[in-house]
Amino acid sequence: MPVQKESAPPAPAKPAPDSTRRSEKSRRAIYDAALSLVVEVGYPKTTIEGIAARAGVGKQTIYRWWSSKADVLMEAFLDLGEQSLREAGPEPYAFPDTGDVAADVKGVLRATVDQLRDPRFEAPSRALAAEGVVNEQLGRELVAKLMQPSLDLYMERLRAAQDAGQVRSDVDPRIALEFFISPLAQRWLQHTGPISYEYTDTLVDYALHGLAPR
Amino acid sequence: MPVQKESAPPAPAKPAPDSTRRSEKSRRAIYDAALSLVVEVGYPKTTIEGIAARAGVGKQTIYRWWSSKADVLMEAFLDLGEQSLREAGPEPYAFPDTGDVAADVKGVLRATVDQLRDPRFEAPSRALAAEGVVNEQLGRELVAKLMQPSLDLYMERLRAAQDAGQVRSDVDPRIALEFFISPLAQRWLQHTGPISYEYTDTLVDYALHGLAPR
Repeated sequence: MPVQKESAPPAPAKPAPDSTRRSEKSRRAIYDAALSLVVEVGYPKTTIEGIAARAGVGKQTIYRWWSSKADVLMEAFLDLGEQSLREAGPEPYAFPDTGDVAADVKGVLRATVDQLRDPRFEAPSRALAAEGVVNEQLGRELVAKLMQPSLDLYMERLRAAQDAGQVRSDVDPRIALEFFISPLAQRWLQHTGPISYEYTDTLVDYALHGLAPR
Repeated sequence: MPVQKESAPPAPAKPAPDSTRRSEKSRRAIYDAALSLVVEVGYPKTTIEGIAARAGVGKQTIYRWWSSKADVLMEAFLDLGEQSLREAGPEPYAFPDTGDVAADVKGVLRATVDQLRDPRFEAPSRALAAEGVVNEQLGRELVAKLMQPSLDLYMERLRAAQDAGQVRSDVDPRIALEFFISPLAQRWLQHTGPISYEYTDTLVDYALHGLAPR
């Protein structure tokens, strides 16, 4: 999911504030190696050893900063999301609140469509998601580390819409947000249909106004 | 998805009408072998040879009936769905139409919840779904062979609801049905939340009545 908190994601455990240009270069090489390996050989065959070899660093360099391959991969993936956001513009990206919840959610979903179509994002994202389907522990880590920040922003925006009278007060925002993200996720993950701005705009209109006549 | 057409699924390509008890027994052994292998070693490492060996049949017996491991697995999986339905009762299962679209969709979704919780169904279903995430061709075959019959029944039921004035006539049923199936699919596939009858009932109410005040 492309929505990010305004604050930066947690930094790797120990890169000291004085981390040199050299360690930044190593960190970048490790992220690149991890992302390319998971795409090429899949999650199960991606190892810390393999990542270290491809990144041209010692295994200990990786273990100094991360405790498992899942940690490395998830931070590499978070960093990839951050990169796209930096490229998209100078402003840190948060969930917009213009007072019009339909327009705001449509805007965020259009950005999600863009990200899902970004080839740099797609391959590692699919590899991790596929592993999460059959590996519940990894799946739950993906949710907690990669998705939850976005889900929280959706919930916050929906609660603001409730305060503004644009969403019914008896609606559970945690369930309501699934009308925006789940159909898109399923089309993308399971190849059940094409994705487009028009499609996500339609989801927002149907969800807010309901399928039944008013 | 558990909704099935009333007609039986297409039979394997060539079991002749006079297929003996012995060939039925082989077919069953092949299905069982295919489902257990995909759970144990994953889709990529499941081979026709491995299925034949475990089923105690010759490779040629499999190739006589199916053209690829994907075909074997998908028919094994369809057969598994049929088995659950047979066990559920003597009536072939179709999408109910009592005239109350909310009640009908809730009933179907509750049956889906039951099926998603059935351990016989869960492991092979996850293994195939995970492979479909990273293997677009297989993913599209899964949609065409396993999901499309259910999607068609949802669309048919929603069109009947449009005729009855319970769903707006300007709604696209193909998109509308995603409010019922996609949130449940995402919670189950990606471990994003618990599934229950109460949850799927809520989806139906929110989808029909909309998130915005009326």
